[in-house]
Amino acid sequence: MLNRRQFASLALSVPAAAAILGPRFASPADAQSAADPLPSWNAGATKSAILNFVRAATDPNGSGFVRPEDRIATFDQDGTLWVEHPIYTQVDFVLNRVVELAPRHPEWKTTEPFKSVLAGDRAAMAKFSTKDLEDIVAATQSGMTTEAFTMIAAAWTAKATDPRWHRPYTELVYKPMLEVMQYLRANGFTTYIVTGGGQDFVRAYAQRVYGVQPSQIIGSASKTEYTYDKSGRGVLVREPSLLLNNNMSGKAEDIYLFLGRRPHAAFGNSTGDQQMLEFTQGNTGARLMMLVLHDDAQREYAYGPAQGLPDTKVGTFTQALYDEATAKNWSVISMKRDWRSIF
Amino acid sequence: MLNRRQFASLALSVPAAAAILGPRFASPADAQSAADPLPSWNAGATKSAILNFVRAATDPNGSGFVRPEDRIATFDQDGTLWVEHPIYTQVDFVLNRVVELAPRHPEWKTTEPFKSVLAGDRAAMAKFSTKDLEDIVAATQSGMTTEAFTMIAAAWTAKATDPRWHRPYTELVYKPMLEVMQYLRANGFTTYIVTGGGQDFVRAYAQRVYGVQPSQIIGSASKTEYTYDKSGRGVLVREPSLLLNNNMSGKAEDIYLFLGRRPHAAFGNSTGDQQMLEFTQGNTGARLMMLVLHDDAQREYAYGPAQGLPDTKVGTFTQALYDEATAKNWSVISMKRDWRSIF
Repeated sequence: MLNRRQFASLALSVPAAAAILGPRFASPADAQSAADPLPSWNAGATKSAILNFVRAATDPNGSGFVRPEDRIATFDQDGTLWVEHPIYTQVDFVLNRVVELAPRHPEWKTTEPFKSVLAGDRAAMAKFSTKDLEDIVAATQSGMTTEAFTMIAAAWTAKATDPRWHRPYTELVYKPMLEVMQYLRANGFTTYIVTGGGQDFVRAYAQRVYGVQPSQIIGSASKTEYTYDKSGRGVLVREPSLLLNNNMSGKAEDIYLFLGRRPHAAFGNSTGDQQMLEFTQGNTGARLMMLVLHDDAQREYAYGPAQGLPDTKVGTFTQALYDEATAKNWSVISMKRDWRSIF
Repeated sequence: MLNRRQFASLALSVPAAAAILGPRFASPADAQSAADPLPSWNAGATKSAILNFVRAATDPNGSGFVRPEDRIATFDQDGTLWVEHPIYTQVDFVLNRVVELAPRHPEWKTTEPFKSVLAGDRAAMAKFSTKDLEDIVAATQSGMTTEAFTMIAAAWTAKATDPRWHRPYTELVYKPMLEVMQYLRANGFTTYIVTGGGQDFVRAYAQRVYGVQPSQIIGSASKTEYTYDKSGRGVLVREPSLLLNNNMSGKAEDIYLFLGRRPHAAFGNSTGDQQMLEFTQGNTGARLMMLVLHDDAQREYAYGPAQGLPDTKVGTFTQALYDEATAKNWSVISMKRDWRSIF
């Protein structure tokens, strides 16, 4: 659920793979106007790809037409819809849970990985393995009802702030992507968040932050056990093991599990989204596959192999993925070039 | 997925647990009129319970009001929406697959449980264990893409007929329940089928038969593996093991997994639906829990413990479930008494 990703090699070229469905310039839909549905996007091939996709999907006389019930668009969350640096928001949540629960677990003071968290040892935490993080998740997010967990996650996300901007994490959502979600919904699409993060964590705030219902969140999911509380009410208790690991191939598998269809549009930013985009491209009719490239250190962050940027171990946009995007005509969104404003 | 159910003891009383939300007679919403949304239902407590539930859920000034995005109604399929006798439709499908695939598996002629299927030995097939059926499902429904399976299931259900009525299975849907689904949808509910049967099997025809989208089918589900076909297209291949066993507690767990909410209305007919109804009752606001009792041998079938009917090993309505329905004020739908017409 929280596994870190590895980087491959680096690339220097500016992405040029965006012009899938239309001409790069002079498209009427590309014009900046009062009715522009994407005002935070600069004119160019990337913006045109979005506008042309929607036009193709909704033209009943065109070969790309998509029936309204088939209009499914899927969005990765971390690094695609909101900031994932310096650590995933949910990792901050999970580490905070260790501190909150420590009084009930005196043994954590002397037991790793909890000891390092309680000591605030950032160097040690930065070296945590996937197993370390999974152990922390299992110890802090299980043994409670799903409803209790939702309340804890909602309360934390309502106040937790990002260390750089000193604003709530939930305000550090990319405005251009919110515009795309709204534009797609206005054209009959249902927008789903398909996240490697915890499904119940994201569900706790997604309606408020993205306008996305709980039933439209597909994420990594714990097993649950049906039982009864003291009053005899049927409840679900979270277990310390994963039912769905919604990353990489898991994204394609879980999209089909939940929806029984392939998407027509998919947005990601890392190797964790590769199969989701491939699965989307394997559909018929109009399709749109897009990857966000973090190349704007001034306004947000710059990381990943393209542009010779550092390997930060969060949000892996490998050269292999970049090459696949080029070969398959996926669009690469340059934050620096394509986004007029970020938040 | 196809597990048979055991009966407990029998009961003789006519259900009287239906008057949850309103008076038994003289309800204005109960009147038969040109605008009656439930014309196949006879007047009475059961019909009134449905009408009064919808009125309570949609009255913005009432204490039972349910926000439109929370209006979730879940329906079991076999025995609740369509006929489940003499065998579950999907069991007929699976046995038919054995015959279809036999030329590729000469060893089946001498290997149980396949041997009995190929010999048409109905006595032996009637004694199949859950394990036997699971082995047949694993051998006949895996190793193909999800899309290939959907085509096979759709083609079979388009022509397979019921042995008693000599009509397609897909026409043996209960008209009163279709009216309830339509009535709920007209009042802002999303209707989900929550079935112990195979999710992909039901998805192959549910849109045509029930007006229910693939994304609104929650069922038992095979694991799938993401891979590539010869052309390099990403596909999902069905594996011979279950990811979700959507029966009993699994129904509550999977409803939450898919939707992140509790339903406000749930309809079933057996012990496999018990936890789904409990989970629904555990919600707040207006709620409706209903169980179909098969007590009409003339127009359909009569089985299950209530009314001293035979234990047919299909669709178990136990005395314990009947007692729970009485104690918790769930509605028991008598097919004989409450339904003006069946199909």
